[in-house]
Amino acid sequence: MHGGNIYQAKERYGRTRFIDLSANINPFGPPDGVLERLAGKLGSIVHYPDPESVSLRARMSELYDLPFENIILGNGAGELLFTILQALKPRRVLIPLPAFSEYRRAAEAVGAAVTPFFLGAKGWARLPLPESARETERFAGEWRGLLSGQDILFLCSPHNPTGTLLKRKQFEILLEVAHTCGCRVIFDESFVDFLPDEKRWSAREYLAGYSNLTIVYSLTKFYSLPGLRLGAAFGRASDLKRFLQARDPWSVNVLAQEAGLAALENKTYAEDVREKLTQSRNFLYSGFERQRFRSWRLRPTWVNFALLELLTGKADRLTESLGKRGILVRDCSNFPGLEGEFVRIAVKTESDMAQLLSALREIEDEESFLGGR
Amino acid sequence: MHGGNIYQAKERYGRTRFIDLSANINPFGPPDGVLERLAGKLGSIVHYPDPESVSLRARMSELYDLPFENIILGNGAGELLFTILQALKPRRVLIPLPAFSEYRRAAEAVGAAVTPFFLGAKGWARLPLPESARETERFAGEWRGLLSGQDILFLCSPHNPTGTLLKRKQFEILLEVAHTCGCRVIFDESFVDFLPDEKRWSAREYLAGYSNLTIVYSLTKFYSLPGLRLGAAFGRASDLKRFLQARDPWSVNVLAQEAGLAALENKTYAEDVREKLTQSRNFLYSGFERQRFRSWRLRPTWVNFALLELLTGKADRLTESLGKRGILVRDCSNFPGLEGEFVRIAVKTESDMAQLLSALREIEDEESFLGGR
Repeated sequence: MHGGNIYQAKERYGRTRFIDLSANINPFGPPDGVLERLAGKLGSIVHYPDPESVSLRARMSELYDLPFENIILGNGAGELLFTILQALKPRRVLIPLPAFSEYRRAAEAVGAAVTPFFLGAKGWARLPLPESARETERFAGEWRGLLSGQDILFLCSPHNPTGTLLKRKQFEILLEVAHTCGCRVIFDESFVDFLPDEKRWSAREYLAGYSNLTIVYSLTKFYSLPGLRLGAAFGRASDLKRFLQARDPWSVNVLAQEAGLAALENKTYAEDVREKLTQSRNFLYSGFERQRFRSWRLRPTWVNFALLELLTGKADRLTESLGKRGILVRDCSNFPGLEGEFVRIAVKTESDMAQLLSALREIEDEESFLGGR
Repeated sequence: MHGGNIYQAKERYGRTRFIDLSANINPFGPPDGVLERLAGKLGSIVHYPDPESVSLRARMSELYDLPFENIILGNGAGELLFTILQALKPRRVLIPLPAFSEYRRAAEAVGAAVTPFFLGAKGWARLPLPESARETERFAGEWRGLLSGQDILFLCSPHNPTGTLLKRKQFEILLEVAHTCGCRVIFDESFVDFLPDEKRWSAREYLAGYSNLTIVYSLTKFYSLPGLRLGAAFGRASDLKRFLQARDPWSVNVLAQEAGLAALENKTYAEDVREKLTQSRNFLYSGFERQRFRSWRLRPTWVNFALLELLTGKADRLTESLGKRGILVRDCSNFPGLEGEFVRIAVKTESDMAQLLSALREIEDEESFLGGR
C-alpha cells in the first residue's frame, strides 16, 4: 500500500536488489558521521532513551531558530500525526487530496469525519493565486465556507505526492481563515529540506503569530534515516505538552536521537544533496523529453519526487513491469483522485534515472504493453 | 518520574557514571551477537522498516508457540499500551495499584475513568488464594462485583513494582469472571522471562480459550535493549488488526527488529541470565540480612527488582543520598499506595549489590539521616 516496502517487493519479484523509487528518500545516504556515530553508540541501547530528547531538541532549537519548548520529537512524522490527532480528538477534518494516507487513517482512528477537497494531480497548482484585494477576498470567502465547522485542516507543502508548492500568499490566507474559523492547521513540511532556501519555505516563522498552527516535520526523508524513525512537531508549548500526554514517554529510540544529532552537525550536506538532486532531476526531465514517450507524461515538480501520468495503460501494470526489471515505483492507485493513471517516482541518482528511462523505453517498445496497438 | 532516566540523573548529581538500579533492566547486556548484528546492519537505516515485521514475528511464533497472526510488535510495550487503549476506547478501566503508571496515562489519554484497586506493597500476595470451591466462589463473587461495568482489567505479573506473582488459580478466576462480565483483560507479562520456567508463567496458553485476553510483552527488559524499543502484543488476530489501525505502520524501527532476531537466536542466554540474577538476588538478600539495618526492610521478590521499605526517613531523601553516591534507585512516591515509604531496587550484578549494601550502611551510620537520633 505504501512506498518503500522493499520486504514485500523482494517476495513479489523474487529479487533482492532494487532501485527503489517508490519511497521519497534522499538516495545519497545519511550525512558523513552518522553511521560512525551510531557504531560508536551501540552500547547505549542498554539505557532507556532520554524521554525529553534534550540534546537533539536543543540542537534543533538553534538550527531552526525556535525556542526549545516549541519542539517535540517523534518516532517518525507518522507517529506524530497519530499522537496529535489522539490528543486533539477532532470531530471533523478537511484533507486536500491526494494526500499521504496517514492523515486519513489518523483521523479515522479517533472517529473524525473526513471531508475531502480534491486537488487532483495538479496539487496546489490547482488553487488560484490571488493577486488583487478582490481575488484575495474571493479566495478567503471560499475557504471560510469550506472550513466552517472543521476542527483541523491538513496542509502539506512541498506536496506529497504531486511535488507542488502552496505559495506563501495562499498559505497566509488559509492560515488566517482557519484561525477565524477556530480550525487548527496541521502543516506537514516533511519535504521542505529538499527545497533550495528551505528556511523561506518552512512555516516555522508563523508559529509566533498563529496559535492554531502545528507543524509536522521529518528528518528521515532528507537525512536518509527512515529505518530509524525520527520526526518532529513544532507548535505552541501548551499544545505540544498536550500531545505528549497521548503517547508513551520513550517513543524516540536512543539511536535515532544520536543519528539526528550527528546528521545536523554536518554543515555542507544539505546544500550538497540539493545540488545533486537538482542535477538528477534535470537529467531525468531532459532524458524523458528526449525519449518522446507516447505513453507517459512527467508532471513538473519542485522536489525529489514527481508524478508520472499514464496516457495509456494502467498504473498497476506499469508498476509490475518496472518491478520485474528491478525498479520500484509507487502506484498511486490508492491516492484518491489519482486512481489508475499515475505512478510516483522518486528522483534519485543520475544512474538510477538512466535505468528508469531505459526501462520505460523497453516497456513502451513492447507492443503488448500498449494493448496490441 | 520514571526509573532509568540517566540523562536527568547526570544533570542532578553532576556525575556521568552510575550504578542504575532505578530501571528493571537485565544488567548483563544484550545476548552475544546482538551488537555485532546491529553493527553489520547499520546500512539498513536508509530503508523503511518492514511494517509487517515478518521475520521477527515468524521467529517469535516458533519460539512462543503461537500462530503468526496472533503476534504484533510495538515500539516498546509502552507504545502498545497506548495503541491498544486508543483502539478500544474503553469508558472504564480497573487498575490494581501500585502499577506501571503508563496504564493510567494510556487510559486517561482516551478519556477512560480509572477505578483503582489497592494491593499495596504486598502486591498480588494481598489477594487470597482460593482452595475450596466455596473460597473460589467467594473470590469470584467479589471480582464479579468489582468488574461489573468495567471495560478493561489491567493485570501485571510478575508484578511491577512489587515483584509478586499472580497465581495460576487466581488468574484463571479473574479471566473467567472478566469474560462473563464482558471485560477485557490486558495482561502485562513484560517480566515473565525473568522467572525460571517462564513458559509456565506466561498467559499465552489462555489465548485460544479466552477471546477477552490480550497480552503485552516486552523484549527490552530481559534482553537489555530499552534504548531500541521493542515490545509485542499477543491476542486474537481480529483484535490485533484493530489495534494496528490506531497507529502508524512503521512503528518498529529496523534496528529493533534486527536486535530482536539476533537476541532470540541465542539459546543459552536466557538460562544463563536467570541463573546469574538468582545468585545476585541471593547475594543481596543474605548481605542485607547480615547488615541488620534498623531503617529498612527488603520485601520478598520473584524477579529482578524488589521493594525496599523505609521504616524511618523518606524515600526522596534516601533516593537523593544514594544518588549522590552514584547509585540510582526508583523512588516509589508516585506509585499510588507506596507514597514516601518505598524505593524500588533492581537486582543487578553482585558487585552492584555489594556497592548498594555498603552505601546503605554508610547512610544508616550517618546519624543525621535518622533525624538526629
